Amino acid sequence: MGINVNRRFLLGGAVGGAGALAGCATAPASAALPADSNLPAGLFGPAPGVALLSRNENPYGPSPKVMAAVAEATRCGAYYCDTSYLAAMIAEKNGIAPSQVVLSTGSGEALSAAALAFGKSGAIACPALFWDTTSKYAEAKGVTLKRSPMIGDLEIDLAAIEASVDDSVSMVHICNPNNPTGRSLDPAQLRAFCSRVSEKVPVLVDEAYNELTDDPAGNSMMDLVRAGKNVLVARTFSKIYGMAGMRIGYIMASEEHARMISQYVMSWMSAPSLAAAVASYNDDAFLAFSKSKVTEARQMVHAAMTANGINYLPSETNFIYANVPDAAAYQRAMAARNIQIRGPYGALTQWSRVSMGKIEDVERYCAAIPEALGA
Amino acid sequence: MGINVNRRFLLGGAVGGAGALAGCATAPASAALPADSNLPAGLFGPAPGVALLSRNENPYGPSPKVMAAVAEATRCGAYYCDTSYLAAMIAEKNGIAPSQVVLSTGSGEALSAAALAFGKSGAIACPALFWDTTSKYAEAKGVTLKRSPMIGDLEIDLAAIEASVDDSVSMVHICNPNNPTGRSLDPAQLRAFCSRVSEKVPVLVDEAYNELTDDPAGNSMMDLVRAGKNVLVARTFSKIYGMAGMRIGYIMASEEHARMISQYVMSWMSAPSLAAAVASYNDDAFLAFSKSKVTEARQMVHAAMTANGINYLPSETNFIYANVPDAAAYQRAMAARNIQIRGPYGALTQWSRVSMGKIEDVERYCAAIPEALGA
Repeated sequence: MGINVNRRFLLGGAVGGAGALAGCATAPASAALPADSNLPAGLFGPAPGVALLSRNENPYGPSPKVMAAVAEATRCGAYYCDTSYLAAMIAEKNGIAPSQVVLSTGSGEALSAAALAFGKSGAIACPALFWDTTSKYAEAKGVTLKRSPMIGDLEIDLAAIEASVDDSVSMVHICNPNNPTGRSLDPAQLRAFCSRVSEKVPVLVDEAYNELTDDPAGNSMMDLVRAGKNVLVARTFSKIYGMAGMRIGYIMASEEHARMISQYVMSWMSAPSLAAAVASYNDDAFLAFSKSKVTEARQMVHAAMTANGINYLPSETNFIYANVPDAAAYQRAMAARNIQIRGPYGALTQWSRVSMGKIEDVERYCAAIPEALGA
Repeated sequence: MGINVNRRFLLGGAVGGAGALAGCATAPASAALPADSNLPAGLFGPAPGVALLSRNENPYGPSPKVMAAVAEATRCGAYYCDTSYLAAMIAEKNGIAPSQVVLSTGSGEALSAAALAFGKSGAIACPALFWDTTSKYAEAKGVTLKRSPMIGDLEIDLAAIEASVDDSVSMVHICNPNNPTGRSLDPAQLRAFCSRVSEKVPVLVDEAYNELTDDPAGNSMMDLVRAGKNVLVARTFSKIYGMAGMRIGYIMASEEHARMISQYVMSWMSAPSLAAAVASYNDDAFLAFSKSKVTEARQMVHAAMTANGINYLPSETNFIYANVPDAAAYQRAMAARNIQIRGPYGALTQWSRVSMGKIEDVERYCAAIPEALGA
């Protein structure tokens, strides 16, 4: 696809001319790469010896293609940058127009913007348990959240959410696969839900973990966006792309919704992050590698949990939600062994979330389970 | 100051332990720097042959210290990053507490957040002409702007703004030095204004260009922030630091105001941008170099304008606002010569803004003045 986008980009002439070389490498001293950055120790990444399994990151990123791209962008860091090329790449891969893509610094910003944009005219219908950071952002500014309780084993109750959609509701927001549960909704049921409900209000599906599932295309609601339905899909470079620290995400929606959300987005992407996204977006070899490491880790954790009698929810993501006697005590016991995992979510004091990290760190987690359970 | 901040940081243990090495360089392939980034040509910076003098950038940045720091952060780009170290550096340099610093992706985001946070409870009093992008962001969401006309040679009318502050006003917002005029307010008058008016409502001063002025400390209202006045100061890494594309800025204010604004900020800084800021914040040699290039360019443009009979407003910034017969025609004539400058601002059709860029580009601008005037 690179050729098509390239041609469109260069003909558009938004930034440079055909065959142009970067015109900004003006400072040779700055272009050279000193051996030592002089940054204080420990500014980035986990401290030595810490297994960081608490934040759903993917430590196998970024893609190897990213380093040189970031260096080039940073040499040009004096200049405001234009994100239209990345929007065109995303649009092309997803079969939509670039005007249907809202880029933001992590998908969180676009999700917050959507919550403000839709929330001003009504409540947001959502599950009791999901990645609700951005909904809470809007709630703190006066937006109402209309939550439906979970059913079964912490499953999203689509029927209850659908029943909750009345004239007071301006948008439905779910996360699939869900966080922190890791559960995926049945694609056929979700597709039918989105088709019906989107006739009444927009349905926003946060698909942050979609690319890690066994059937990304089947699990995604992008076909409904392409079909012109009232559906919005959020994606991120923080998970399978392994670039949580680079802050790159986006929402794909109708042109009208994209414009609405864009008006609320506050920032725009930095040049290094833009370069990282462009360089890695279609790096299929790296994405397959990422996914294989996540799958390998998940199988290890599943086996260890089963061996230790821990029940866990099904997950096709890079985290597992497991039923333990006391999630806070379990977290403390892991922390005492330099293994960081998530503590309880609110009243869910018997559920513990662990992220898939480096294989050697996941091994440490698995080995520590018996002692942590006994703690 | 490095020692103090380092100690505080390491004792605080927010990110890593004392003497810790970055624990995230897990991907040797990614750590190596390929010769070619494979980015499409022209993605960053001006196209070859274009003198980009329209956006108040500083092409002499970033500081040489930035490249290695960004590379280190990008190797750790898999992990969410913690901006508290940068907040502590900024606080220390400015004599305030870290909790008084709101970091954002460019100062624009913090300014937009402030406009929403204060604007919800009243109008924003401001000049007719200033960098109002962020105020307009809030205006589009229902916030009222109460503008006071300019006086004299496009000067901010502090008396009129003060007189406009009544119960309907929630904040005063000015920009000093102002953009697009380049004019600086008299520091004593501004300080007296801020002291008086801040007894009624918060006064936000955007000091994006402060470090480029002849007397940064004297021109800044930071002494009032330190004194606990109801004053807020915005700064950016986009100007003297030469990193517009890196999206780093901040507001310094009371702890209460900082908390208020933070609740509205939507995004957080990427790891490469954070690293770039930390590496260059106290690079005084580079800042002096930047300032010397801006001053050199300004003197060239002033001389060329005088020689061509163009009147211009006084400026201690990296741009000059000049009185020309027809700003649109003048811009077109420059563009025909591959020199990009700003076109007219609204009804100000006889005023043209040119940014100081690379010396060779500024020379081209100066040489083109006679023909552009004749166009």
